[in-house]
Amino acid sequence: MAEMIGFLGTGKLGLPIAQNLLSAGFGLKVYNRTREKAAGLIAAGAVPAETPLETLSTGGIIVSVLADDKALLALADEEFCRALGAGVHVSMSTVSPVTSRILAERHAAFGGELVVAPVFGRPAAAAAGKLWICASGPADAKARVKPLFDAVGQGVFDFGDDPGAANVVKLAGNFLLTAAIEAMAEASAMAEKNGVPRGEMLKMLVSTIFNCPIYVNYSKPIIEGDFGEGGFSNLLILKDMQLVQKTASDGRAPMPIVNLLCDRYLSAIAKGRADSDAVSLALGAAEDAGLEW
Amino acid sequence: MAEMIGFLGTGKLGLPIAQNLLSAGFGLKVYNRTREKAAGLIAAGAVPAETPLETLSTGGIIVSVLADDKALLALADEEFCRALGAGVHVSMSTVSPVTSRILAERHAAFGGELVVAPVFGRPAAAAAGKLWICASGPADAKARVKPLFDAVGQGVFDFGDDPGAANVVKLAGNFLLTAAIEAMAEASAMAEKNGVPRGEMLKMLVSTIFNCPIYVNYSKPIIEGDFGEGGFSNLLILKDMQLVQKTASDGRAPMPIVNLLCDRYLSAIAKGRADSDAVSLALGAAEDAGLEW
Repeated sequence: MAEMIGFLGTGKLGLPIAQNLLSAGFGLKVYNRTREKAAGLIAAGAVPAETPLETLSTGGIIVSVLADDKALLALADEEFCRALGAGVHVSMSTVSPVTSRILAERHAAFGGELVVAPVFGRPAAAAAGKLWICASGPADAKARVKPLFDAVGQGVFDFGDDPGAANVVKLAGNFLLTAAIEAMAEASAMAEKNGVPRGEMLKMLVSTIFNCPIYVNYSKPIIEGDFGEGGFSNLLILKDMQLVQKTASDGRAPMPIVNLLCDRYLSAIAKGRADSDAVSLALGAAEDAGLEW
Repeated sequence: MAEMIGFLGTGKLGLPIAQNLLSAGFGLKVYNRTREKAAGLIAAGAVPAETPLETLSTGGIIVSVLADDKALLALADEEFCRALGAGVHVSMSTVSPVTSRILAERHAAFGGELVVAPVFGRPAAAAAGKLWICASGPADAKARVKPLFDAVGQGVFDFGDDPGAANVVKLAGNFLLTAAIEAMAEASAMAEKNGVPRGEMLKMLVSTIFNCPIYVNYSKPIIEGDFGEGGFSNLLILKDMQLVQKTASDGRAPMPIVNLLCDRYLSAIAKGRADSDAVSLALGAAEDAGLEW
């Protein structure tokens, strides 16, 4: 368990994941562009690296949790893949399946393997080690990194060899989640404009037929009309919805709701809410109905 | 508990509700346009009526579970409301809040009270006495019919005096449910066209972040591609979505997803699936993506 693992990307999601790996006894070599973001980890025993390359050891394990496809492709260039050699890259970022397939080929050229492992769960769930992990990639590599998954998640779902498969599932989940927010938003505006407080309506539904984490957690800020700056910004979720749109387009699968969601997030950002939590999309339907929450 | 109650509308939902009232010890006087539909109830001890009016007793309780607004308004005409007098009409149909407000006024003219009590739950839940009930109307009338609710449901949520309030909540719930089906359908088509079987994707999501009755129950037929003729037909749910559309329009609340859902159900019916279960809407997104399930 004392294997030294490289860790890249200690943002809102990456940081608690790294902390749980440290707590579970793994050694960590960490790098973040913004140095202060890794300070807590280093205080807790992680080894700081001056560059991403320094986190790598030939044949070792590297975990990356980055913001988007561009950052991931820029990081894992030929030099990076050569330095990792026949190691395993665990890619936990929410990116397109196409990016993962490109990345898997880059690693394969140097004998390396890519395990794609995006997760479901807000930062609080990550801190509690309660993430749900979607994994895809070569079976031997997935087996090798299983102890890492056990340290950060409450369950792993295996989607086979295709590195892009786990990304498809992650995108599908984020789409369902965001569609649920938009549906709650529209239902809330309709209820309020017909004399029924949205809180009464939503509380009933999320305690009965919709009693699951997504509806329970995301109805709260809608009921309270209090969105703030959450763990998952409108900017980030717009990127995700555009990935869904692109993935649907690549596969030739029309998704009318995702097109609507992209417009809703564009509008939220246009109105100055780029950094608000993704659930603040609910304001769109309210504003369209002339409501102020 | 031996009070004789009138019961109108022994269809897919009404029949198990009536059976549970009988089992709980209430006397029932039943009428259905299609006589055979009440045959089982009569065998179990219900008293048959030749006309709707015959089910009424002045100052008594009448329960109605009808298909739509038109049927309800046609039934509860002046003669009907006069015959019920200062009794209570428990209206469990999914109708518009406007219809309930009209009906409440009709009863009030003869000293009667309307309790609006639409329910959530498929016929199997109704048979098990596990419905969730939304109730609105005068407090004294709701208190009087509480023993009936206890016999057919697992919980009652009170939405106050406005008779239309419970309808608004029921419509909001049916909208959320149908939006969830459409979202699962779109995500499934996207996944399949990108090489991930929809069953694998949906099974993960409905066992984790979407682990609630709606997603668990409605993902099954989508996964299996087996829709059949369920408890809740495309024709009935189109009527519900059009009620949501009308209620949203009356209140001036734009709901882009409900407009999409109406189009999806119109298309399903146009393709010959009027009597298929409402979850068969999922075929629309699949067909649009060139898939055959």
